[in-house]
Amino acid sequence: MRIHTDLTPAESYQDVVVLIDVLRTSTVAPVLFERGLESLALTPSLRSARGAAREGWLLLGERQGVPAEGFNYGNSPAELSTIDLRGRRAVMVSENLPRWLSNVAGARQVLLGSLYNAAATAEVASSRARDSIALAGCGFEGEPDLDDALGAGLLAAILGERLPAAVRSGATRFAISLLRAFPDPMEALWQSVSGHYLRRVGLERDLAFAAQVSVSGIVPRLVEQREGAGSAPLYLFAPADRPS
Amino acid sequence: MRIHTDLTPAESYQDVVVLIDVLRTSTVAPVLFERGLESLALTPSLRSARGAAREGWLLLGERQGVPAEGFNYGNSPAELSTIDLRGRRAVMVSENLPRWLSNVAGARQVLLGSLYNAAATAEVASSRARDSIALAGCGFEGEPDLDDALGAGLLAAILGERLPAAVRSGATRFAISLLRAFPDPMEALWQSVSGHYLRRVGLERDLAFAAQVSVSGIVPRLVEQREGAGSAPLYLFAPADRPS
Repeated sequence: MRIHTDLTPAESYQDVVVLIDVLRTSTVAPVLFERGLESLALTPSLRSARGAAREGWLLLGERQGVPAEGFNYGNSPAELSTIDLRGRRAVMVSENLPRWLSNVAGARQVLLGSLYNAAATAEVASSRARDSIALAGCGFEGEPDLDDALGAGLLAAILGERLPAAVRSGATRFAISLLRAFPDPMEALWQSVSGHYLRRVGLERDLAFAAQVSVSGIVPRLVEQREGAGSAPLYLFAPADRPS
Repeated sequence: MRIHTDLTPAESYQDVVVLIDVLRTSTVAPVLFERGLESLALTPSLRSARGAAREGWLLLGERQGVPAEGFNYGNSPAELSTIDLRGRRAVMVSENLPRWLSNVAGARQVLLGSLYNAAATAEVASSRARDSIALAGCGFEGEPDLDDALGAGLLAAILGERLPAAVRSGATRFAISLLRAFPDPMEALWQSVSGHYLRRVGLERDLAFAAQVSVSGIVPRLVEQREGAGSAPLYLFAPADRPS
């Protein structure tokens, strides 16, 4: 088994890939399922998202950190953790994670991982991987960012305990060393570019929310790719079954 | 002015690029000039290096951390800091930095930077740049490594003081945040993959040497690209003139 890390996603993946956007999409996705959401679609296309909304899906997402006009909710895990979403479907558009979905969609298993669901993600990833687990940080505007690098480090450290014989790439060891340098994850989120951005728009509470470690057992998994409005893809996620 | 960081080098560069291999080539290069070396050639090609050696150049370098057979010296800054090199020319081959020289050779100015010559490198880079300074870590076996990421962070922090209006990319801010996380550079070198590798072959003293900050005023600069034996290039470096 190999554990590989990309601080921004590579062109494509084969086996298991964990897409990591700690601030905020891979933190908010498990929150939505905790609140009772039935189905979550992610898309980089505003048009495709609005098309799904016309079919009754809740429209979630952000432009520059806050909800876009006509959206039901933004992308704030702190806000969404208080909403009742039982029986609802939602489509989420954001400027960061969704742009990478076409890179990862060809992998055998695509999971969304964060600090918030780290232990469960490591459990699902290690039980489903045949020969490799890739940890892919979404970064910020195409560059590596500290929140996702730390998330990759935490996932790699837990995977290393579950799979002690696994070969860890150089970037994986790099990510693990960050974890040692930031014993309090909040410090890393505070210093990340994404964190600066959220602080500027008054969303400090999302940093505190996303800094929680392994409190969720839900691991969103890509289950279907569907054509949305304007031929842009909708990527459908559902909670992965946990190994028994 | 823009300050950009690549944790491993990009395909090509335009203006000023600082190639960073803290452990060890961009640390050892200023040491060689301090010891009186007249001209330093770097090459990824063993054949090309041996060709230069037949013409009287000292042959320096490593395979797996230690000097290769028939070499005059290895790549250890601690060792080379005690040798008299006055009036000599040397060609150095190593497994890490030289492989990236073809990526950077097209830039207007190519400098070698490390913790050891950080302040001087920032001074030369900021005085010579027209619109951008790229900090390119060499990493380890093609992946980001902590020694070079920290070196980029230190250079970026000093450049930020010299050029307060410069735009810093996301990865640059990422690198600067590492600097805050590792107030003692030795800790980062110790945890880096390159550092592990050197410790395994008994070269801990090179970590301590490379952890020294801004003690050298010498900034190696690419001055000529020459065809060596077997058509492989030799990249010639000389100390950059410091701005007066």
